[in-house]
Amino acid sequence: MTGLRGPVLVVGAGLLGTSVGLALRARGIEVLLRDVNDEHLRTASGLGAGTPANGSPVAPELVVVAVPPDHLAEAIAEALTTTDAVVTDVGSVKGRPLARVAELVPAEALARYVGSHPMAGSERSGPLAASSLLFDGRPWAVAPHASSYPGAAALVTALAEACGATPFAFTPAEHDAAVARTSHVPHVMAALVAGALADAPSEHLSLSGQGVRDVTRIAAGDPALWQQILTANAAALTGLLREVRDRLDGVLDALDAGSRDALAEVLGRGVAGTAAIPGKHGGPTVPVEGVFVGVPDHPGELARLFADCGDIGVNIEDVRIDHDPGRPVGLTELTVAEDAADRLRTALEERGWSVHG
Amino acid sequence: MTGLRGPVLVVGAGLLGTSVGLALRARGIEVLLRDVNDEHLRTASGLGAGTPANGSPVAPELVVVAVPPDHLAEAIAEALTTTDAVVTDVGSVKGRPLARVAELVPAEALARYVGSHPMAGSERSGPLAASSLLFDGRPWAVAPHASSYPGAAALVTALAEACGATPFAFTPAEHDAAVARTSHVPHVMAALVAGALADAPSEHLSLSGQGVRDVTRIAAGDPALWQQILTANAAALTGLLREVRDRLDGVLDALDAGSRDALAEVLGRGVAGTAAIPGKHGGPTVPVEGVFVGVPDHPGELARLFADCGDIGVNIEDVRIDHDPGRPVGLTELTVAEDAADRLRTALEERGWSVHG
Repeated sequence: MTGLRGPVLVVGAGLLGTSVGLALRARGIEVLLRDVNDEHLRTASGLGAGTPANGSPVAPELVVVAVPPDHLAEAIAEALTTTDAVVTDVGSVKGRPLARVAELVPAEALARYVGSHPMAGSERSGPLAASSLLFDGRPWAVAPHASSYPGAAALVTALAEACGATPFAFTPAEHDAAVARTSHVPHVMAALVAGALADAPSEHLSLSGQGVRDVTRIAAGDPALWQQILTANAAALTGLLREVRDRLDGVLDALDAGSRDALAEVLGRGVAGTAAIPGKHGGPTVPVEGVFVGVPDHPGELARLFADCGDIGVNIEDVRIDHDPGRPVGLTELTVAEDAADRLRTALEERGWSVHG
Repeated sequence: MTGLRGPVLVVGAGLLGTSVGLALRARGIEVLLRDVNDEHLRTASGLGAGTPANGSPVAPELVVVAVPPDHLAEAIAEALTTTDAVVTDVGSVKGRPLARVAELVPAEALARYVGSHPMAGSERSGPLAASSLLFDGRPWAVAPHASSYPGAAALVTALAEACGATPFAFTPAEHDAAVARTSHVPHVMAALVAGALADAPSEHLSLSGQGVRDVTRIAAGDPALWQQILTANAAALTGLLREVRDRLDGVLDALDAGSRDALAEVLGRGVAGTAAIPGKHGGPTVPVEGVFVGVPDHPGELARLFADCGDIGVNIEDVRIDHDPGRPVGLTELTVAEDAADRLRTALEERGWSVHG
């Protein structure tokens, strides 16, 4: 594996670019920053993400292009033609920008380009939302094209690792098919479910539970960004969305005909699909179970609960608090390994907690 | 408001019935339990949810029918004809069971029936998953029909309150339209997104992030139960699903035509829909913000974090841990009121935590 020595030029000091800068600076790698927005540049630099380099000549080892989807191809081409560096980008779609870059630069320059895509983000944007930990433990797709030179792919893989992420190699087309399925189809469907809520009488929405909140959460994402992403990946996305539409027609037929078998098949495929998602960080899924604990609404009670869990020696994989400021007791769900759940329940009850589930 | 004095007969000692029993017993109200499954009955009774009454003559003030959707109407009708009590149920659909009950019992008995529906549940089922806190702070729909007598609706409202829930009054048709939109459409769409994952090459799923996990979580629910729910609410559900299908066709047309305006409209409606969902417990939405904290993977570190939050005096509304057992630092997202976020960030940094977002 080629190590990353730097300097690294980051073009675009938004959430992703600034986070890359912070992660690399934390490992002592020199980072130069460019952004058309001077305020973003000052903010990112002030946070410690690197040194502003607007207008200065630079000779980086690697350029990371982190601009909005509509400007990707031009910014990548510019980096390839104005430096001798390896160039990558962190955009959500790989095929269409690559095709455009190939039109803009000679073959020698194109060989230095390897697209990539860290699976990390936030509903917030801009440098102030950035973090050196943003990529920690996240998948990071590295997508060399047919004529990328091997050293370039190795350097981009080293970038992903330097940012704390887990690199996965894909061709650009495979990457785009994968994110159409795991990110773009879910976004469209979440937006459609949420859109149906926008029409509802408000009293109907009083019956909203955690389920609809979870299904629709990502639909709060920036429409201007998402229309760029979905358009750029239209080729991979439309085939999958047509399959989903056909299955939705099947659900409608089954409901009209009262055909439970057809419904059971769709629902059963859904269960299989949830089980197919790998563990949070790309590793194998650890079977987990929820333990529900009633937590009095006093300051310090959550701290006491976690202190007890620490004493008991059970690792908490996730937490969800169903908290209502107006009520004396909230319910906290602790997600733990399945084989530790009963031990945790018993030990918490012995310590006086109200436990169930 | 009519108070609930009891005794209350709970028919069906699964997750919901046992939880009702536990909540009422915690308030000192006498509870009798029936279940066709003797083991469920013994378990629920052993947990303290009430006294077994299989085969015994009873004279309850209120009967709560908590059996699977397919058996609801018959169980409600039996309760109305074998007792003089007010009868409610906790099923997910109100219109179709009501129509069937109306065929099975005389008008005098039907007047004592008021359907209801607590918006609470779990991916687990059975009495062992039950809790006296299951309904705490949750919405609980109370759905009298045109000839329900007013005292019956008041008693069912008192039941919801005794269980710690917040009652909302609906007609049966309004209820079914509301849950079609807030629960059944989301379930179908989650199942379709998850179903598309079931077909995927497994390496593509390595790019799954938190978004697709959230969108598909509810699709893990029991297909046998959900086919009953969706079938029972087909009338309200199909109209909404057709609207969603037509909008999905619109997305496909927009992608084929490269029409960004049409995409922007769908995405913008999605944003509006997420904003329309009320606060977690039916109250107004409090603007919240995420504060991300790096937490070393040692026992006791989460306890220390929550102790510090308690000292700082900021209320934690929700927590999400992005935890990977293989890594030294996990990222914990603390959701707090928007106007407290900056104060929490500063105070945690002063205490040596790595904070961002």
